[in-house]
Amino acid sequence: MSEVAEGEGSVTLDLLKKKMADFAKERDWEPYHSPRNLLLAMIGEVGELSEIFQWKGEVPRGLPGWEEREKEHLGEELSDVLLYLVRLSDICGIDLGQAALRKVKLNAIKYPIKLSDQNGKNDANTSKNKDEDACPDNSSSVQHSA
Amino acid sequence: MSEVAEGEGSVTLDLLKKKMADFAKERDWEPYHSPRNLLLAMIGEVGELSEIFQWKGEVPRGLPGWEEREKEHLGEELSDVLLYLVRLSDICGIDLGQAALRKVKLNAIKYPIKLSDQNGKNDANTSKNKDEDACPDNSSSVQHSA
Amino acid sequence: MSEVAEGEGSVTLDLLKKKMADFAKERDWEPYHSPRNLLLAMIGEVGELSEIFQWKGEVPRGLPGWEEREKEHLGEELSDVLLYLVRLSDICGIDLGQAALRKVKLNAIKYPIKLSDQNGKNDANTSKNKDEDACPDNSSSVQHSA
Amino acid sequence: MSEVAEGEGSVTLDLLKKKMADFAKERDWEPYHSPRNLLLAMIGEVGELSEIFQWKGEVPRGLPGWEEREKEHLGEELSDVLLYLVRLSDICGIDLGQAALRKVKLNAIKYPIKLSDQNGKNDANTSKNKDEDACPDNSSSVQHSA
Repeated sequence: MSEVAEGEGSVTLDLLKKKMADFAKERDWEPYHSPRNLLLAMIGEVGELSEIFQWKGEVPRGLPGWEEREKEHLGEELSDVLLYLVRLSDICGIDLGQAALRKVKLNAIKYPIKLSDQNGKNDANTSKNKDEDACPDNSSSVQHSA
Repeated sequence: MSEVAEGEGSVTLDLLKKKMADFAKERDWEPYHSPRNLLLAMIGEVGELSEIFQWKGEVPRGLPGWEEREKEHLGEELSDVLLYLVRLSDICGIDLGQAALRKVKLNAIKYPIKLSDQNGKNDANTSKNKDEDACPDNSSSVQHSA
Repeated sequence: MSEVAEGEGSVTLDLLKKKMADFAKERDWEPYHSPRNLLLAMIGEVGELSEIFQWKGEVPRGLPGWEEREKEHLGEELSDVLLYLVRLSDICGIDLGQAALRKVKLNAIKYPIKLSDQNGKNDANTSKNKDEDACPDNSSSVQHSA
Repeated sequence: MSEVAEGEGSVTLDLLKKKMADFAKERDWEPYHSPRNLLLAMIGEVGELSEIFQWKGEVPRGLPGWEEREKEHLGEELSDVLLYLVRLSDICGIDLGQAALRKVKLNAIKYPIKLSDQNGKNDANTSKNKDEDACPDNSSSVQHSA
Protein backbone atom coordinates (compact mmCIF):
# COMPACT_ATOMS: atom_id res chain seq x y z
CA MET A 1 0.00 0.00 0.00
CA SER A 2 2.85 2.34 0.78
CA GLU A 3 4.22 1.89 -2.71
CA VAL A 4 0.79 2.52 -4.13
CA ALA A 5 0.39 5.63 -2.05
CA GLU A 6 3.83 6.74 -3.14
CA GLY A 7 3.00 5.94 -6.73
CA GLU A 8 -0.35 7.68 -6.87
CA GLY A 9 1.08 10.89 -5.47
CA SER A 10 -1.05 10.85 -2.36
CA VAL A 11 1.46 10.36 0.42
CA THR A 12 0.24 8.69 3.60
CA LEU A 13 1.52 9.40 7.09
CA ASP A 14 2.07 5.66 7.48
CA LEU A 15 4.45 5.68 4.53
CA LEU A 16 6.50 8.50 6.05
CA LYS A 17 6.44 6.77 9.43
CA LYS A 18 7.84 3.60 7.87
CA LYS A 19 10.50 5.48 5.93
CA MET A 20 11.65 7.32 9.05
CA ALA A 21 11.72 4.11 11.10
CA ASP A 22 13.75 2.30 8.41
CA PHE A 23 16.08 5.27 8.02
CA ALA A 24 16.89 5.37 11.73
CA LYS A 25 17.24 1.60 12.02
CA GLU A 26 19.60 1.32 9.03
CA ARG A 27 21.91 3.95 10.54
CA ASP A 28 21.69 2.76 14.15
CA TRP A 29 20.18 6.11 15.14
CA GLU A 30 17.35 4.53 17.13
CA PRO A 31 19.10 5.09 20.47
CA TYR A 32 18.98 8.84 19.78
CA HIS A 33 15.31 8.90 18.87
CA SER A 34 13.81 9.45 22.30
CA PRO A 35 10.67 11.60 22.60
CA ARG A 36 12.37 14.73 23.93
CA ASN A 37 15.36 14.41 21.60
CA LEU A 38 12.99 14.27 18.64
CA LEU A 39 10.88 17.12 19.99
CA LEU A 40 13.95 19.36 20.29
CA ALA A 41 15.12 18.29 16.84
CA MET A 42 11.71 19.23 15.44
CA ILE A 43 11.91 22.60 17.17
CA GLY A 44 15.30 23.12 15.56
CA GLU A 45 13.63 22.63 12.19
CA VAL A 46 10.80 24.98 13.13
CA GLY A 47 13.54 27.53 13.71
CA GLU A 48 14.97 26.90 10.23
CA LEU A 49 11.49 27.31 8.78
CA SER A 50 11.01 30.58 10.65
CA GLU A 51 14.31 31.92 9.32
CA ILE A 52 12.97 31.64 5.78
CA PHE A 53 10.16 34.05 6.65
CA GLN A 54 11.86 36.21 9.25
CA TRP A 55 12.86 39.33 7.31
CA LYS A 56 10.17 39.29 4.65
CA GLY A 57 7.34 41.14 6.27
CA GLU A 58 3.93 39.93 5.18
CA VAL A 59 4.14 37.19 2.54
CA PRO A 60 1.25 36.71 0.07
CA ARG A 61 -0.26 33.27 -0.56
CA GLY A 62 1.44 31.25 -3.25
CA LEU A 63 4.69 33.13 -2.62
CA PRO A 64 4.55 35.22 -5.80
CA GLY A 65 8.01 36.23 -6.98
CA TRP A 66 9.91 33.71 -4.86
CA GLU A 67 12.75 32.04 -6.71
CA GLU A 68 12.51 28.31 -7.35
CA ARG A 69 15.55 27.88 -5.13
CA GLU A 70 13.68 29.52 -2.25
CA LYS A 71 10.55 27.45 -2.72
CA GLU A 72 12.64 24.29 -2.82
CA HIS A 73 14.36 25.32 0.41
CA LEU A 74 10.97 26.04 1.98
CA GLY A 75 9.73 22.60 0.95
CA GLU A 76 12.76 21.04 2.60
CA GLU A 77 12.24 22.85 5.88
CA LEU A 78 8.51 22.10 5.93
CA SER A 79 9.46 18.47 5.31
CA ASP A 80 12.02 18.40 8.09
CA VAL A 81 9.36 19.54 10.56
CA LEU A 82 6.90 16.95 9.24
CA LEU A 83 9.39 14.08 9.29
CA TYR A 84 10.37 14.75 12.91
CA LEU A 85 6.72 15.19 13.87
CA VAL A 86 5.88 11.83 12.28
CA ARG A 87 8.83 10.18 13.99
CA LEU A 88 8.02 11.75 17.36
CA SER A 89 4.44 10.52 17.11
CA ASP A 90 5.60 7.02 16.20
CA ILE A 91 8.05 6.87 19.11
CA CYS A 92 5.29 8.03 21.45
CA GLY A 93 2.94 5.35 20.16
CA ILE A 94 0.49 7.90 18.74
CA ASP A 95 -1.30 7.22 15.44
CA LEU A 96 -0.82 10.73 14.06
CA GLY A 97 -3.18 10.31 11.10
CA GLN A 98 -6.07 9.06 13.20
CA ALA A 99 -5.35 11.66 15.87
CA ALA A 100 -5.47 14.41 13.22
CA LEU A 101 -8.80 13.19 11.81
CA ARG A 102 -10.19 13.11 15.34
CA LYS A 103 -8.93 16.62 16.04
CA VAL A 104 -10.56 17.97 12.89
CA LYS A 105 -13.85 16.47 14.08
CA LEU A 106 -13.43 18.02 17.53
CA ASN A 107 -12.72 21.39 15.95
CA ALA A 108 -15.85 21.10 13.79
CA ILE A 109 -17.93 20.49 16.92
CA LYS A 110 -16.25 23.34 18.76
CA TYR A 111 -16.75 25.80 15.92
CA PRO A 112 -20.10 25.11 14.29
CA ILE A 113 -20.22 26.71 10.87
CA LYS A 114 -23.28 28.83 11.64
CA LEU A 115 -22.15 30.05 15.02
CA SER A 116 -18.53 30.76 14.23
CA ASP A 117 -19.24 34.48 13.99
CA GLN A 118 -20.87 34.72 17.39
CA ASN A 119 -17.98 32.70 18.80
CA GLY A 120 -15.81 35.45 17.52
CA LYS A 121 -17.44 37.80 19.98
CA ASN A 122 -16.19 35.81 22.94
CA ASP A 123 -13.94 37.71 25.28
CA ALA A 124 -10.19 37.33 25.50
CA ASN A 125 -10.41 34.71 28.22
CA THR A 126 -11.41 32.17 25.61
CA SER A 127 -8.86 33.24 23.03
CA LYS A 128 -6.30 30.70 24.18
CA ASN A 129 -8.55 27.71 23.50
CA LYS A 130 -9.75 29.24 20.29
CA ASP A 131 -6.21 29.90 19.12
CA GLU A 132 -5.38 26.28 19.80
CA ASP A 133 -8.03 25.36 17.30
CA ALA A 134 -7.13 27.81 14.58
CA CYS A 135 -10.13 30.05 15.17
CA PRO A 136 -9.09 33.57 14.31
CA ASP A 137 -12.46 35.06 15.16
CA ASN A 138 -11.61 36.46 18.54
CA SER A 139 -8.28 37.61 17.24
CA SER A 140 -10.03 39.39 14.44
CA SER A 141 -12.10 41.28 17.02
CA VAL A 142 -8.81 42.07 18.73
CA GLN A 143 -7.50 43.12 15.38
CA HIS A 144 -10.43 45.44 14.82
CA SER A 145 -9.71 47.10 18.11
CA ALA A 146 -6.10 47.50 16.97
CA MET B 1 -10.23 9.11 -2.71
CA SER B 2 -10.31 11.00 0.52
CA GLU B 3 -13.08 8.81 1.88
CA VAL B 4 -11.18 5.73 0.81
CA ALA B 5 -8.02 6.93 2.47
CA GLU B 6 -10.00 7.83 5.56
CA GLY B 7 -11.72 4.48 5.47
CA GLU B 8 -8.63 2.34 5.09
CA GLY B 9 -7.00 3.92 8.09
CA SER B 10 -4.01 5.20 6.18
CA VAL B 11 -4.43 8.97 6.26
CA THR B 12 -3.00 10.94 3.37
CA LEU B 13 -1.63 14.46 3.56
CA ASP B 14 -3.95 15.35 0.69
CA LEU B 15 -6.96 14.35 2.79
CA LEU B 16 -5.84 16.57 5.66
CA LYS B 17 -5.10 19.39 3.23
CA LYS B 18 -8.63 19.16 1.83
CA LYS B 19 -10.20 19.03 5.28
CA MET B 20 -8.27 22.09 6.43
CA ALA B 21 -9.16 24.01 3.27
CA ASP B 22 -12.85 23.14 3.62
CA PHE B 23 -12.80 23.97 7.32
CA ALA B 24 -11.39 27.44 6.72
CA LYS B 25 -13.66 28.13 3.74
CA GLU B 26 -16.83 27.12 5.59
CA ARG B 27 -15.99 29.52 8.44
CA ASP B 28 -14.72 32.38 6.32
CA TRP B 29 -11.30 32.06 7.96
CA GLU B 30 -9.40 32.14 4.67
CA PRO B 31 -8.50 35.83 5.03
CA TYR B 32 -6.60 34.95 8.20
CA HIS B 33 -4.68 32.05 6.67
CA SER B 34 -1.66 33.92 5.37
CA PRO B 35 1.74 32.18 5.43
CA ARG B 36 3.15 34.04 8.43
CA ASN B 37 -0.12 33.90 10.38
CA LEU B 38 -0.20 30.13 9.92
CA LEU B 39 3.47 29.80 10.77
CA LEU B 40 3.00 31.67 14.05
CA ALA B 41 -0.13 29.64 14.79
CA MET B 42 1.88 26.45 14.23
CA ILE B 43 4.60 27.73 16.56
CA GLY B 44 1.92 28.36 19.18
CA GLU B 45 0.99 24.70 18.92
CA VAL B 46 4.63 23.63 19.10
CA GLY B 47 4.66 25.51 22.40
CA GLU B 48 1.62 23.57 23.63
CA LEU B 49 3.34 20.35 22.63
CA SER B 50 6.50 21.35 24.49
CA GLU B 51 4.51 22.09 27.62
CA ILE B 52 3.39 18.47 27.76
CA PHE B 53 7.03 17.36 28.04
CA GLN B 54 8.52 20.31 29.88
CA TRP B 55 8.70 19.09 33.48
CA LYS B 56 9.05 15.38 32.87
CA GLY B 57 12.76 14.91 32.45
CA GLU B 58 13.65 12.12 30.05
CA VAL B 59 10.58 10.31 28.73
CA PRO B 60 10.88 6.67 27.58
CA ARG B 61 9.54 5.53 24.22
CA GLY B 62 5.90 4.47 24.24
CA LEU B 63 5.24 6.75 27.23
CA PRO B 64 4.93 3.93 29.78
CA GLY B 65 2.68 4.90 32.67
CA TRP B 66 1.12 7.92 30.99
CA GLU B 67 -2.61 8.21 31.63
CA GLU B 68 -4.94 7.80 28.65
CA ARG B 69 -5.98 11.42 29.21
CA GLU B 70 -2.39 12.55 28.76
CA LYS B 71 -1.83 10.49 25.62
CA GLU B 72 -5.05 11.85 24.15
CA HIS B 73 -3.91 15.38 24.91
CA LEU B 74 -0.53 14.64 23.32
CA GLY B 75 -2.26 13.33 20.21
CA GLU B 76 -4.27 16.53 19.99
CA GLU B 77 -1.21 18.77 20.23
CA LEU B 78 0.75 16.68 17.71
CA SER B 79 -2.29 16.98 15.44
CA ASP B 80 -2.54 20.74 15.87
CA VAL B 81 1.06 21.10 14.73
CA LEU B 82 0.45 18.78 11.77
CA LEU B 83 -2.77 20.49 10.69
CA TYR B 84 -1.16 23.94 10.65
CA LEU B 85 1.90 22.56 8.88
CA VAL B 86 -0.33 21.02 6.20
CA ARG B 87 -2.32 24.24 5.86
CA LEU B 88 0.83 26.40 5.73
CA SER B 89 2.27 24.19 2.99
CA ASP B 90 -0.96 24.38 1.02
CA ILE B 91 -1.14 28.16 1.28
CA CYS B 92 2.49 28.37 0.14
CA GLY B 93 1.76 26.15 -2.85
CA ILE B 94 4.08 23.40 -1.61
CA ASP B 95 3.14 19.73 -2.08
CA LEU B 96 4.18 18.64 1.40
CA GLY B 97 3.93 14.91 0.73
CA GLN B 98 6.11 15.01 -2.36
CA ALA B 99 8.53 17.40 -0.68
CA ALA B 100 8.84 14.99 2.26
CA LEU B 101 9.53 11.99 0.01
CA ARG B 102 12.16 14.05 -1.81
CA LYS B 103 13.75 15.11 1.48
CA VAL B 104 13.98 11.51 2.67
CA LYS B 105 15.80 10.66 -0.58
CA LEU B 106 18.18 13.61 -0.12
CA ASN B 107 18.89 12.51 3.44
CA ALA B 108 19.63 8.97 2.25
CA ILE B 109 22.20 10.33 -0.22
CA LYS B 110 23.70 12.62 2.40
CA TYR B 111 24.01 9.86 4.99
CA PRO B 112 24.92 6.64 3.21
CA ILE B 113 24.24 3.67 5.44
CA LYS B 114 27.81 2.36 5.35
CA LEU B 115 29.52 5.69 5.81
CA SER B 116 27.28 7.16 8.46
CA ASP B 117 29.84 6.35 11.17
CA GLN B 118 32.69 8.11 9.44
CA ASN B 119 30.38 11.05 8.82
CA GLY B 120 29.98 11.15 12.54
CA LYS B 121 33.64 12.07 12.82
CA ASN B 122 33.13 15.29 10.93
CA ASP B 123 34.02 18.38 12.87
CA ALA B 124 31.56 20.75 14.47
CA ASN B 125 31.44 23.01 11.42
CA THR B 126 29.25 20.48 9.70
CA SER B 127 27.05 19.77 12.68
CA LYS B 128 24.46 22.36 11.68
CA ASN B 129 23.77 20.75 8.32
CA LYS B 130 23.81 17.34 9.87
CA ASP B 131 21.42 18.36 12.60
CA GLU B 132 19.07 19.67 9.94
CA ASP B 133 18.91 16.18 8.56
CA ALA B 134 18.40 14.31 11.79
CA CYS B 135 21.89 12.87 11.86
CA PRO B 136 22.90 12.45 15.49
CA ASP B 137 26.31 11.10 14.66
CA ASN B 138 28.26 14.27 15.17
CA SER B 139 26.19 15.03 18.21
CA SER B 140 27.05 11.64 19.56
CA SER B 141 30.73 12.40 19.14
CA VAL B 142 30.05 15.66 20.93
CA GLN B 143 28.20 13.64 23.51
CA HIS B 144 31.15 11.29 23.93
CA SER B 145 33.36 14.24 24.54
CA ALA B 146 30.85 15.47 27.07
CA MET C 1 24.86 54.40 33.51
CA SER C 2 25.23 51.94 30.67
CA GLU C 3 29.00 52.16 30.87
CA VAL C 4 28.84 51.73 34.61
CA ALA C 5 26.59 48.71 34.32
CA GLU C 6 28.89 47.32 31.64
CA GLY C 7 31.91 48.06 33.77
CA GLU C 8 30.64 46.54 36.96
CA GLY C 9 29.74 43.31 35.28
CA SER C 10 26.06 43.55 36.02
CA VAL C 11 24.47 43.99 32.62
CA THR C 12 21.18 45.86 32.45
CA LEU C 13 18.40 45.22 29.94
CA ASP C 14 18.50 48.93 29.14
CA LEU C 15 22.14 48.63 28.09
CA LEU C 16 21.34 45.75 25.74
CA LYS C 17 18.32 47.62 24.41
CA LYS C 18 20.51 50.62 23.58
CA LYS C 19 23.19 48.49 21.97
CA MET C 20 20.63 46.72 19.79
CA ALA C 21 19.00 50.01 18.79
CA ASP C 22 22.37 51.57 17.89
CA PHE C 23 23.43 48.45 16.02
CA ALA C 24 20.32 48.46 13.84
CA LYS C 25 20.44 52.21 13.25
CA GLU C 26 24.11 52.20 12.23
CA ARG C 27 23.44 49.52 9.62
CA ASP C 28 20.10 50.85 8.38
CA TRP C 29 18.39 47.67 9.52
CA GLU C 30 15.57 49.50 11.29
CA PRO C 31 13.14 48.97 8.40
CA TYR C 32 13.47 45.21 8.94
CA HIS C 33 12.90 45.33 12.67
CA SER C 34 9.13 45.02 12.74
CA PRO C 35 7.50 43.09 15.61
CA ARG C 36 6.72 39.92 13.66
CA ASN C 37 10.05 39.95 11.80
CA LEU C 38 11.87 40.12 15.13
CA LEU C 39 9.63 37.48 16.67
CA LEU C 40 10.38 35.06 13.83
CA ALA C 41 14.08 35.89 14.03
CA MET C 42 13.99 35.12 17.75
CA ILE C 43 12.25 31.82 17.05
CA GLY C 44 15.01 31.01 14.57
CA GLU C 45 17.51 31.46 17.39
CA VAL C 46 15.40 29.35 19.74
CA GLY C 47 15.76 26.65 17.10
CA GLU C 48 19.54 27.04 17.11
CA LEU C 49 19.51 26.79 20.89
CA SER C 50 17.39 23.64 20.75
CA GLU C 51 19.80 22.04 18.28
CA ILE C 52 22.57 22.24 20.88
CA PHE C 53 20.52 20.06 23.23
CA GLN C 54 18.65 17.91 20.74
CA TRP C 55 20.63 14.66 20.71
CA LYS C 56 22.03 14.76 24.21
CA GLY C 57 19.32 13.16 26.28
CA GLU C 58 19.10 14.56 29.79
CA VAL C 59 21.79 17.15 30.50
CA PRO C 60 22.97 17.70 34.09
CA ARG C 61 23.20 21.20 35.60
CA GLY C 62 26.47 22.98 34.97
CA LEU C 63 27.02 20.94 31.82
CA PRO C 64 29.76 18.72 33.27
CA GLY C 65 32.12 17.44 30.58
CA TRP C 66 31.06 19.93 27.90
CA GLU C 67 33.96 21.32 25.92
CA GLU C 68 34.69 25.03 26.23
CA ARG C 69 33.83 25.36 22.55
CA GLU C 70 30.36 23.96 23.23
CA LYS C 71 29.74 26.20 26.21
CA GLU C 72 30.84 29.22 24.20
CA HIS C 73 28.46 28.23 21.41
CA LEU C 74 25.66 27.79 23.95
CA GLY C 75 26.36 31.25 25.35
CA GLU C 76 26.11 32.69 21.85
CA GLU C 77 22.76 31.07 21.13
CA LEU C 78 21.33 32.05 24.52
CA SER C 79 22.51 35.58 23.72
CA ASP C 80 20.93 35.62 20.29
CA VAL C 81 17.57 34.75 21.83
CA LEU C 82 18.02 37.43 24.50
CA LEU C 83 19.10 40.14 22.07
CA TYR C 84 16.11 39.57 19.78
CA LEU C 85 13.79 39.41 22.79
CA VAL C 86 15.14 42.73 24.03
CA ARG C 87 14.82 44.27 20.58
CA LEU C 88 11.29 42.90 20.08
CA SER C 89 10.23 44.34 23.43
CA ASP C 90 11.74 47.71 22.56
CA ILE C 91 10.02 47.84 19.17
CA CYS C 92 6.73 46.95 20.85
CA GLY C 93 7.19 49.74 23.40
CA ILE C 94 7.37 47.30 26.32
CA ASP C 95 9.78 47.92 29.21
CA LEU C 96 11.00 44.35 29.46
CA GLY C 97 12.84 44.79 32.76
CA GLN C 98 9.87 46.32 34.56
CA ALA C 99 7.52 43.79 32.97
CA ALA C 100 9.74 40.96 34.22
CA LEU C 101 9.83 42.32 37.78
CA ARG C 102 6.06 42.65 37.67
CA LYS C 103 5.67 39.09 36.41
CA VAL C 104 7.85 37.71 39.19
CA LYS C 105 5.59 39.49 41.69
CA LEU C 106 2.46 38.07 40.03
CA ASN C 107 3.97 34.59 40.13
CA ALA C 108 4.77 34.99 43.83
CA ILE C 109 1.13 35.86 44.50
CA LYS C 110 -0.10 33.00 42.35
CA TYR C 111 2.17 30.45 44.02
CA PRO C 112 2.42 31.30 47.71
CA ILE C 113 5.38 29.53 49.24
CA LYS C 114 3.32 27.68 51.83
CA LEU C 115 0.53 26.63 49.51
CA SER C 116 2.58 25.62 46.52
CA ASP C 117 2.21 21.95 47.39
CA GLN C 118 -1.57 22.06 47.59
CA ASN C 119 -1.58 23.97 44.34
CA GLY C 120 0.16 20.98 42.93
CA LYS C 121 -2.94 18.92 43.58
CA ASN C 122 -4.99 20.97 41.17
CA ASP C 123 -6.38 19.05 38.26
CA ALA C 124 -5.08 19.15 34.71
CA ASN C 125 -7.48 21.91 33.70
CA THR C 126 -5.30 24.40 35.48
CA SER C 127 -2.02 22.99 34.28
CA LYS C 128 -1.82 25.37 31.33
CA ASN C 129 -1.86 28.50 33.49
CA LYS C 130 0.49 26.90 35.96
CA ASP C 131 2.92 25.87 33.25
CA GLU C 132 2.92 29.43 32.00
CA ASP C 133 4.23 30.44 35.38
CA ALA C 134 6.92 27.83 35.76
CA CYS C 135 5.05 25.85 38.37
CA PRO C 136 5.99 22.21 37.95
CA ASP C 137 3.74 21.05 40.76
CA ASN C 138 0.88 19.82 38.68
CA SER C 139 3.33 18.37 36.22
CA SER C 140 5.02 16.57 39.04
CA SER C 141 1.70 15.00 40.01
CA VAL C 142 1.32 14.03 36.38
CA GLN C 143 4.83 12.69 36.54
CA HIS C 144 4.05 10.62 39.61
CA SER C 145 1.13 9.09 37.80
CA ALA C 146 3.51 8.34 34.93
CA MET D 1 23.15 46.32 44.17
CA SER D 2 20.12 44.38 43.06
CA GLU D 3 17.87 46.65 45.08
CA VAL D 4 19.59 49.65 43.57
CA ALA D 5 19.15 48.32 40.10
CA GLU D 6 15.53 47.55 40.91
CA GLY D 7 15.10 50.99 42.40
CA GLU D 8 16.65 52.96 39.58
CA GLY D 9 14.48 51.30 37.00
CA SER D 10 17.36 49.73 35.15
CA VAL D 11 16.91 46.01 35.72
CA THR D 12 19.99 43.82 35.64
CA LEU D 13 20.11 40.23 34.44
CA ASP D 14 21.81 39.36 37.74
CA LEU D 15 18.79 40.65 39.63
CA LEU D 16 16.42 38.48 37.60
CA LYS D 17 18.76 35.52 37.98
CA LYS D 18 18.71 35.91 41.75
CA LYS D 19 14.93 36.31 41.86
CA MET D 20 14.42 33.18 39.77
CA ALA D 21 16.86 31.18 41.89
CA ASP D 22 15.18 32.30 45.13
CA PHE D 23 11.72 31.63 43.68
CA ALA D 24 12.60 28.07 42.75
CA LYS D 25 14.40 27.38 46.02
CA GLU D 26 11.54 28.69 48.18
CA ARG D 27 9.09 26.38 46.42
CA ASP D 28 11.35 23.34 46.18
CA TRP D 29 11.18 23.49 42.39
CA GLU D 30 14.93 23.15 41.92
CA PRO D 31 14.68 19.43 41.10
CA TYR D 32 12.55 20.34 38.08
CA HIS D 33 14.92 23.03 36.79
CA SER D 34 17.16 20.91 34.61
CA PRO D 35 18.52 22.42 31.39
CA ARG D 36 16.19 20.62 29.00
CA ASN D 37 13.14 21.04 31.25
CA LEU D 38 13.77 24.78 31.33
CA LEU D 39 14.43 24.92 27.61
CA LEU D 40 11.11 23.22 26.86
CA ALA D 41 9.35 25.49 29.36
CA MET D 42 10.85 28.51 27.60
CA ILE D 43 9.68 27.17 24.25
CA GLY D 44 6.19 26.82 25.71
CA GLU D 45 6.31 30.52 26.51
CA VAL D 46 7.61 31.35 23.03
CA GLY D 47 4.47 29.61 21.81
CA GLU D 48 2.30 31.80 24.04
CA LEU D 49 4.09 34.86 22.72
CA SER D 50 3.53 33.74 19.13
CA GLU D 51 -0.18 33.26 19.77
CA ILE D 52 -0.50 36.96 20.58
CA PHE D 53 0.73 37.83 17.08
CA GLN D 54 -0.59 34.88 15.11
CA TRP D 55 -3.76 36.24 13.49
CA LYS D 56 -2.81 39.88 13.26
CA GLY D 57 -0.96 40.11 9.97
CA GLU D 58 1.77 42.73 9.99
CA VAL D 59 1.92 44.68 13.24
CA PRO D 60 3.33 48.22 13.25
CA ARG D 61 5.98 49.33 15.74
CA GLY D 62 4.62 50.60 19.04
CA LEU D 63 1.48 48.50 18.59
CA PRO D 64 -0.81 51.44 17.76
CA GLY D 65 -4.39 50.74 18.72
CA TRP D 66 -3.65 47.78 20.95
CA GLU D 67 -5.70 47.75 24.14
CA GLU D 68 -3.83 48.18 27.44
CA ARG D 69 -4.98 44.68 28.35
CA GLU D 70 -3.25 43.29 25.27
CA LYS D 71 -0.01 45.17 25.89
CA GLU D 72 0.01 43.97 29.48
CA HIS D 73 -0.49 40.40 28.29
CA LEU D 74 2.32 40.84 25.76
CA GLY D 75 4.61 42.14 28.52
CA GLU D 76 3.82 39.05 30.57
CA GLU D 77 4.63 36.64 27.77
CA LEU D 78 7.84 38.48 26.85
CA SER D 79 8.75 38.27 30.54
CA ASP D 80 8.01 34.57 30.77
CA VAL D 81 10.43 33.92 27.91
CA LEU D 82 13.07 36.14 29.53
CA LEU D 83 12.72 34.61 32.98
CA TYR D 84 13.13 31.07 31.68
CA LEU D 85 16.03 32.15 29.48
CA VAL D 86 17.75 33.72 32.50
CA ARG D 87 17.08 30.63 34.60
CA LEU D 88 18.28 28.27 31.85
CA SER D 89 21.49 30.25 31.49
CA ASP D 90 22.06 30.18 35.25
CA ILE D 91 21.50 26.43 35.46
CA CYS D 92 23.93 25.94 32.58
CA GLY D 93 26.56 28.08 34.32
CA ILE D 94 26.49 30.71 31.58
CA ASP D 95 26.80 34.41 32.46
CA LEU D 96 24.07 35.59 30.12
CA GLY D 97 24.82 39.29 30.44
CA GLN D 98 28.52 38.91 29.64
CA ALA D 99 27.74 36.45 26.87
CA ALA D 100 25.31 38.96 25.34
CA LEU D 101 27.85 41.79 25.45
CA ARG D 102 30.39 39.49 23.82
CA LYS D 103 27.91 38.48 21.12
CA VAL D 104 27.14 42.11 20.30
CA LYS D 105 30.88 42.69 19.85
CA LEU D 106 31.17 39.63 17.60
CA ASN D 107 28.24 40.85 15.53
CA ALA D 108 29.85 44.28 15.16
CA ILE D 109 33.03 42.65 13.82
CA LYS D 110 31.04 40.40 11.50
CA TYR D 111 28.96 43.25 10.10
CA PRO D 112 31.17 46.32 9.83
CA ILE D 113 29.06 49.44 9.49
CA LYS D 114 30.59 50.51 6.20
CA LEU D 115 30.56 47.12 4.57
CA SER D 116 27.17 45.92 5.68
CA ASP D 117 25.69 46.71 2.27
CA GLN D 118 28.24 44.70 0.34
CA ASN D 119 27.77 41.88 2.81
CA GLY D 120 24.17 41.97 1.82
CA LYS D 121 25.17 40.87 -1.65
CA ASN D 122 26.46 37.55 -0.38
CA ASP D 123 24.72 34.56 -1.80
CA ALA D 124 22.14 32.47 -0.03
CA ASN D 125 24.72 30.02 1.25
CA THR D 126 25.74 32.54 3.84
CA SER D 127 22.22 33.55 4.79
CA LYS D 128 22.05 31.09 7.66
CA ASN D 129 25.01 32.58 9.47
CA LYS D 130 23.85 36.07 8.71
CA ASP D 131 20.35 35.34 9.95
CA GLU D 132 21.84 34.05 13.18
CA ASP D 133 23.27 37.49 13.68
CA ALA D 134 20.22 39.51 12.82
CA CYS D 135 21.57 40.71 9.51
CA PRO D 136 18.64 41.20 7.18
CA ASP D 137 20.76 42.30 4.26
CA ASN D 138 20.85 39.03 2.39
CA SER D 139 17.20 38.53 3.17
CA SER D 140 16.49 41.91 1.72
CA SER D 141 18.14 40.84 -1.50
CA VAL D 142 15.95 37.77 -1.36
CA GLN D 143 13.05 40.06 -0.67
CA HIS D 144 13.85 42.19 -3.69
CA SER D 145 13.76 39.12 -5.83
CA ALA D 146 10.39 38.32 -4.28
